[in-house]
Amino acid sequence: MKTEGGPEAAKRRAGERAIETIEDGFVVGLGTGSTTAHAIRAIGRAVDDGLEIRGIPTSFQSRQLALEVGIPLTDLDAVDVVDLAIDGADQVLDDPDAATHGALIKGGGAAHAREKLVDTAADRFVVVADPSKLTDRLERPVPVEVLPDAHAVVAERVRTFGGEPTLRDAERKDGPVVTDNGNLVLDCGFGAIDDPDALATRLSRLPGVVEHGLFVGQADATYVGSDGGVEVRRY
Amino acid sequence: MKTEGGPEAAKRRAGERAIETIEDGFVVGLGTGSTTAHAIRAIGRAVDDGLEIRGIPTSFQSRQLALEVGIPLTDLDAVDVVDLAIDGADQVLDDPDAATHGALIKGGGAAHAREKLVDTAADRFVVVADPSKLTDRLERPVPVEVLPDAHAVVAERVRTFGGEPTLRDAERKDGPVVTDNGNLVLDCGFGAIDDPDALATRLSRLPGVVEHGLFVGQADATYVGSDGGVEVRRY
Repeated sequence: MKTEGGPEAAKRRAGERAIETIEDGFVVGLGTGSTTAHAIRAIGRAVDDGLEIRGIPTSFQSRQLALEVGIPLTDLDAVDVVDLAIDGADQVLDDPDAATHGALIKGGGAAHAREKLVDTAADRFVVVADPSKLTDRLERPVPVEVLPDAHAVVAERVRTFGGEPTLRDAERKDGPVVTDNGNLVLDCGFGAIDDPDALATRLSRLPGVVEHGLFVGQADATYVGSDGGVEVRRY
Repeated sequence: MKTEGGPEAAKRRAGERAIETIEDGFVVGLGTGSTTAHAIRAIGRAVDDGLEIRGIPTSFQSRQLALEVGIPLTDLDAVDVVDLAIDGADQVLDDPDAATHGALIKGGGAAHAREKLVDTAADRFVVVADPSKLTDRLERPVPVEVLPDAHAVVAERVRTFGGEPTLRDAERKDGPVVTDNGNLVLDCGFGAIDDPDALATRLSRLPGVVEHGLFVGQADATYVGSDGGVEVRRY
């Protein structure tokens, strides 16, 4: 028998382990991305076995997968509480000495506005990741969702505080990526981000910005899958 | 000959006076509301007389009026600079001793996301108002534009910091007002707002918030029309 290994196995281990705290009656935020997809599939199997939960998807994509695997769905305005959200990340700050340990960047899939809404509405938000997502400094470009008319103004403002914005182009349509909310995305490179919290405030306050992909102080734990198992960072 | 008086005359004086600094070649942000409409009409007359400017509307409504009075229009991503923006306000803090003198609340017309975008993109942003808009403390409910799925979550968060949110209902359609961006509006009462800048940051950072109607440190002057003439507050 061959032992499963490599990145996909690590993602699967993280996703499957992250659902361990789900109890009957939970409302669960269902995140987006390849690692979270393993969690959603595992929840679907548990529902088949009798687990009674309702899911709230963070994106069109996670909604489709949840429907496919048979998870009953609900909406944010139909529940009193979201017990748990499980979601992936593009990069997670892994530095126990940093005040912003566990800060992360999301939005590679342009779903970060709804992801942040659902993830931060949850009592507990856990991230699932493989080791390649961990870093001792956040340095990926920050995806910033902007109102369509705002892209040029926001890009100019971002440049004034040292960012390099790029309007994200689509690949299966002409022109830019349009988000599920009908907006555009500027990927804003800042090099290594020294103060994620200050940058998050700065981006949030820019007129025309709907949401940015910096999540600071919002995750409660990261489940990191590897060939050897799953390590849990708690914040 | 009857002397024109009353609130409408005050608004007209403010609107007409605010255009005095416009020069040939200017790009002008065209705000929304009854006082600003006087400015737009006055600009239209000046264009008829040969003034060469281009306008950028802040809303569907101001775009319609600008087209009607013959102002050539352009877009934010088609210009290098917006020289001046003229816009109204629902309430303006009129207290020279306050650090936030000139802070204001907009969004009665649900156009504040685009208004803030255009107004703050301008080199110079002037407010036009009649005296009824001036106050020594901001206390009107703050209009907060939210993604449709976010209204319940944002309302709950706003309550945690002392606000009383009300989803704005439409009058000529069933259900809520839908903004020009396809979103909803929560009118959030906070009583007298002690620290408008802190509240602005707090609202901006809430996931699901597209834009709120608190403008702090953004206006350069307010033109206040009255029966006697126009007073100019500079900030």
